[in-house]
Amino acid sequence: MTRRPGAISRRQMLAGSGLATAAVVAAAGAGPTAAAAATSGTPGTTEPFHGEHQGGIVTPEQARMVFAAYDVSDTGRAGLAALLATWSAAVERMAAGQAVAGPADPFAPPADTGEALDLPAARLTLTLGYGPSLFDDRFGLAARRPAALAELPAFPGDALDPARTGGDLCVQACADDAQVAFHAIHNLTRLGLGTVTLRYLQVGFGRTASAGGSTATPRNLLGFKDGTANLDPTDARAMDSFVWVDGSGDQNWMRGGSYLVARRIRVHLEAWDRSTLGDQERTIGRSKPSGAPLGSSNERDPLDLRALDDFGTPLVPEDAHVRVAAPVTNHGAALLRRGYSFVDGMDPTTGELDAGLFFMCFQKDPRSQFVPIQQRLAGQDALTTYLEHTGGGVFACPPGPGPDRPWGHGLV
Amino acid sequence: MTRRPGAISRRQMLAGSGLATAAVVAAAGAGPTAAAAATSGTPGTTEPFHGEHQGGIVTPEQARMVFAAYDVSDTGRAGLAALLATWSAAVERMAAGQAVAGPADPFAPPADTGEALDLPAARLTLTLGYGPSLFDDRFGLAARRPAALAELPAFPGDALDPARTGGDLCVQACADDAQVAFHAIHNLTRLGLGTVTLRYLQVGFGRTASAGGSTATPRNLLGFKDGTANLDPTDARAMDSFVWVDGSGDQNWMRGGSYLVARRIRVHLEAWDRSTLGDQERTIGRSKPSGAPLGSSNERDPLDLRALDDFGTPLVPEDAHVRVAAPVTNHGAALLRRGYSFVDGMDPTTGELDAGLFFMCFQKDPRSQFVPIQQRLAGQDALTTYLEHTGGGVFACPPGPGPDRPWGHGLV
Repeated sequence: MTRRPGAISRRQMLAGSGLATAAVVAAAGAGPTAAAAATSGTPGTTEPFHGEHQGGIVTPEQARMVFAAYDVSDTGRAGLAALLATWSAAVERMAAGQAVAGPADPFAPPADTGEALDLPAARLTLTLGYGPSLFDDRFGLAARRPAALAELPAFPGDALDPARTGGDLCVQACADDAQVAFHAIHNLTRLGLGTVTLRYLQVGFGRTASAGGSTATPRNLLGFKDGTANLDPTDARAMDSFVWVDGSGDQNWMRGGSYLVARRIRVHLEAWDRSTLGDQERTIGRSKPSGAPLGSSNERDPLDLRALDDFGTPLVPEDAHVRVAAPVTNHGAALLRRGYSFVDGMDPTTGELDAGLFFMCFQKDPRSQFVPIQQRLAGQDALTTYLEHTGGGVFACPPGPGPDRPWGHGLV
Repeated sequence: MTRRPGAISRRQMLAGSGLATAAVVAAAGAGPTAAAAATSGTPGTTEPFHGEHQGGIVTPEQARMVFAAYDVSDTGRAGLAALLATWSAAVERMAAGQAVAGPADPFAPPADTGEALDLPAARLTLTLGYGPSLFDDRFGLAARRPAALAELPAFPGDALDPARTGGDLCVQACADDAQVAFHAIHNLTRLGLGTVTLRYLQVGFGRTASAGGSTATPRNLLGFKDGTANLDPTDARAMDSFVWVDGSGDQNWMRGGSYLVARRIRVHLEAWDRSTLGDQERTIGRSKPSGAPLGSSNERDPLDLRALDDFGTPLVPEDAHVRVAAPVTNHGAALLRRGYSFVDGMDPTTGELDAGLFFMCFQKDPRSQFVPIQQRLAGQDALTTYLEHTGGGVFACPPGPGPDRPWGHGLV
């Protein structure tokens, strides 16, 4: 059992391996000493693991996402704490582009499943969230449940599949490489064996990094630019106002955290594709090619909801998506959106595409942000005709880990 | 209705658009004049559309795949020919990074669905295949069915889901951008409305281009390097020997084409992950970290199936995957493999991952290549324990299009 001091990256591990199996054993056996250096890594390909906030919230969107929701077995609070400690160590290594460490036993299963062995960290972030159901009587956490972590109400038109909804825990894995994102969830699921079971798993894609460092706003599967009016994640003041939980809440452990609402929104593309360009633009309230508000020329032109055409009709229709979703329509409520498109093959019941947007948003309090906005959208947004909310959940994402604070610290 | 001469790329279209809607109309109206210049495009991001062979066979593997199988309605041979002509024009434009062209009518649905508008061609290739069922009595094609396009026999352990198996037509879309690959299938499906219906759709991922132009062999979800012993697609002699149909077959229209066998192979990762490293390496016959044959040091070392350990036991076990699949074990039969990993969420019946390999291979004649190899694998390969073949099909991929030969020419 060869042991090497310190951490070695997945790439270094392979580059230097003469006796390959010995190298895997060495990496697997790096153990606790590895953790200290784990936040080093190839510049430009790693996102910081330690910080006031978790990664994957204001991190510039990576190209790929795998979102997993888990149910926790009735293992008591000690079992939950042990799981989180195991996960934290693995997440720290993976975020640095390293293989998961474990006992160096060639007669045991590999500590790391291996499919990311030659790959860089690819800007991997892992974001943990706690669902409302975790605060039932199984773990003695009822008194620690934040008031803001209320179950979402039923919205008009909801078509939530229970098998795709809820979860005691969630992990959002984002990376610029699909295999790296999957590897992370694969390994967390494996490490949680006996404590957690998968409830659902969603794969998504966004802007591909190789598409050229473009600063253009990405398009969703409707063919429209999506995110023009999103909050700017580099605007610290906006993040403090709308995203990060401050000390004013009822649960101090959430300070520096954020609440995630995820919705799997299927888009009925066949119906959308048959609507005219004019209908599509009036439904959204923006030009399809440029993304400019209707009546304006440029994507970044301000949204003027009072502008009228020559007949006195609003240029942005009353039921246009951008109008109904706008902060000014919602008493100033805004969200940090972070969505990924999904294509889950074909719906066998209709022969249509099962595709759409895995919508995620982060906020200080869903009760005053996502919930009233979605209530308005579900009732008034012309786009709703083409959408079907088929799953998702609400999760409390704790603050970020540090040298003396594991991932998910504060609650358990 | 503005018309512009020649082709404009999706990017040029947007960059130059002052009046955005007019720009879309212009692109949609580019019409026949666009086709002549359609094979131009940004260097490095387009793959040639015209050629002796279709793209997507020996093309260096792109990072993303969307595979669609279609059933054709009973529209007669004229309907099928019209579909192929429409598809050919759209494919030629998309392969050049252009939007699908169509009548410039603002009161009609957009000619292109739009989600790839700002994106380059991303090395998009589209590969068309004809399934055995296309040669029944609907289109009068029975006499043109190649003998090599025989239905695959049932293999031991097959668990084929009829809803994921077969298809009159298939299209393999490969690109370095997930949205570009999906956009292509989305638009072909839409253009085929009334003539074709989706039968199944599979999304897959491989090596991510942004992972750094690495020449390392990619790993599959088992964590092993996959493709070390694959045929070299740049070896023209090997391609002529094993992949391209020559003039000796019974159907001359297939000359320059190839036969595709696709298999959706689910990997039972939970069981695999619980096996030891030693077991995994003996199952495959290679080192997990390096990919070297057992008993050798380097990935590219020749596979010596006669090498014995000190106890006289074969270093590569009798049932190791690499031994059973090796050409020397199969009377010299070899295939050009082109596989993509898939993650389709969770199997709701077991709570396990529904993930694995969408295996594709191209060959001169499946009856003497895929079929005998798979018969041997299904009976003898130790890896079979962890695998489940859940869908796929066999397809005749015609030769490549040219200036006077549309995509899919030769058959109809």
